[in-house]
Amino acid sequence: MLLAEMGRKKEPMEVPQLLIDLTELRQAIDGALENYTRDATGAPQRLVGAMRYSVLAPGKRLRPLLTLLASQAISGNWDAAIPAACAIEFIHVYSLIHDDLPSMDDDDLRRGQPTCHRQYDEATAILAGDSLQMLAIEVLCKAYDCELAAKCCEIVAVSAGRQWLVGGQADDLAAEGRYGQVEIANELRFDYLKSIHRRKTGAIIEASLRLGGVVASASEAQIQHLCEYGQALGLAFQITDDCLDVDGTVEQLGKQTRKDSTHGKLTYPRVLGLEGSRQLVSELIANACQAVSSFGETAAGLVQIARFVEQRRS
Amino acid sequence: MLLAEMGRKKEPMEVPQLLIDLTELRQAIDGALENYTRDATGAPQRLVGAMRYSVLAPGKRLRPLLTLLASQAISGNWDAAIPAACAIEFIHVYSLIHDDLPSMDDDDLRRGQPTCHRQYDEATAILAGDSLQMLAIEVLCKAYDCELAAKCCEIVAVSAGRQWLVGGQADDLAAEGRYGQVEIANELRFDYLKSIHRRKTGAIIEASLRLGGVVASASEAQIQHLCEYGQALGLAFQITDDCLDVDGTVEQLGKQTRKDSTHGKLTYPRVLGLEGSRQLVSELIANACQAVSSFGETAAGLVQIARFVEQRRS
Repeated sequence: MLLAEMGRKKEPMEVPQLLIDLTELRQAIDGALENYTRDATGAPQRLVGAMRYSVLAPGKRLRPLLTLLASQAISGNWDAAIPAACAIEFIHVYSLIHDDLPSMDDDDLRRGQPTCHRQYDEATAILAGDSLQMLAIEVLCKAYDCELAAKCCEIVAVSAGRQWLVGGQADDLAAEGRYGQVEIANELRFDYLKSIHRRKTGAIIEASLRLGGVVASASEAQIQHLCEYGQALGLAFQITDDCLDVDGTVEQLGKQTRKDSTHGKLTYPRVLGLEGSRQLVSELIANACQAVSSFGETAAGLVQIARFVEQRRS
Repeated sequence: MLLAEMGRKKEPMEVPQLLIDLTELRQAIDGALENYTRDATGAPQRLVGAMRYSVLAPGKRLRPLLTLLASQAISGNWDAAIPAACAIEFIHVYSLIHDDLPSMDDDDLRRGQPTCHRQYDEATAILAGDSLQMLAIEVLCKAYDCELAAKCCEIVAVSAGRQWLVGGQADDLAAEGRYGQVEIANELRFDYLKSIHRRKTGAIIEASLRLGGVVASASEAQIQHLCEYGQALGLAFQITDDCLDVDGTVEQLGKQTRKDSTHGKLTYPRVLGLEGSRQLVSELIANACQAVSSFGETAAGLVQIARFVEQRRS
């Protein structure tokens, strides 16, 4: 029984508030991640070790949960979405490994442990990230029939490509002045900030939902609702990330804080202030819940995740 | 007219020797690479610039040519194989960009121009490589129907993953003593060397041929012949690479030479000597030509490429 009993909706904005037990979903995700990253013929121990070190580190598993819960929202089941959920987590973890590298965000701590290149070395970290990208595609191709596999591969490849994930990271580094300093007029800064977040964080979150929908044979209209939810949630998630960098602690987050201000990074709190940022998060979460309200009770998991993002302290 | 008139085969080992004009194929590849890497909404200029800088640099285009010629060998046509040919070239170029990084092979020169991280910066080079991986998958998914796309994506993902391309590169760095020094007994060194080359270079060359075969609806037996050709050619190519590092010049190769001996790298000339290495190349090329001899005249392009590898000075 995945969904606890829920109250009836009275109007679209009043969403189910009862808690769903996500333990089973998390365990299924962790088990599959463990399986998919096991030793494989020809794969060097050190490389596999680095992949597993980063993939199996304790994480929120937000993206794979979204894939499972999107599938659940559409079909009432999440089992078939496990490979897609793992694929998107592999993409997410690869992006963390590469973003943490000295030539990028230069981070020493991630998920409460040394970053991949600190634990292993830079070359191994780069190669671990590279293999995780291909593992995501391999898992999709091996798990699904051709039609589903091709659709899922395209979603992953586009969202993780130059126009979205990687493009957002490149512009984020540029905005930070890491290279090719970008001059942005003051009145355009907020739009620029949104554009970076939409690409760097939003696209993969949206892809997580889209994958869950596609695996559950969602209609175009249903995918559209999932994407609206994903866009609002993704932006809210990034804003809370920015806020936690200001008022969170290393213990809560498992990574360094105050990095953004140290690097003069363009963030939501810098543009809107902490209170304004939190207010925007609340509005976005309301929009997200609204977007999936038509799915009714099967979307309770998505609503719960949205509430979690609104209130998260880690 | 792609194939020049050829003499008749008298026995399997006597392969067509007349030259085929590869200009049209090269132009088709270059045109498609140019198209696929054009500006795309949301993709930062600098990132796109770095991708194009490395992709459009003058290269031999060995891998995409093999894809086209494998397709030609099976169906007599190569047009439909262009997207697959570009996908494998994107994977190859990404691997060059990442392998050249300071934490890996630390190269300054590639294809006669500064390496990507020297021309741009390290972060941009890493991100350009990352986007090229995803672009390869995107191109396959958009160009082909689901069945073909899924098959091609799996070929690319497996061959470029932890068991093959990336695994080979990781063990190559280890063998070089870059990290996690590997102790290898003297009598096992040659096997270890072959295993690295088979994964680092051979797998992508084999994948190039497999892709061409799959796109041309080859039978399993035909794919097997193409792969045998690819395995022999891939190894021969790597050995000539090692030899050219010893007796080639920077002008011929467009990259630094004597890198292997400087880094104490395990190479064929070090194990077999230059003459022994060249002898092995000749045997492998004979095997490669033998493997595709049953295709007859449509395999003339593959034979020509094999002869080119045997005699290459760049």
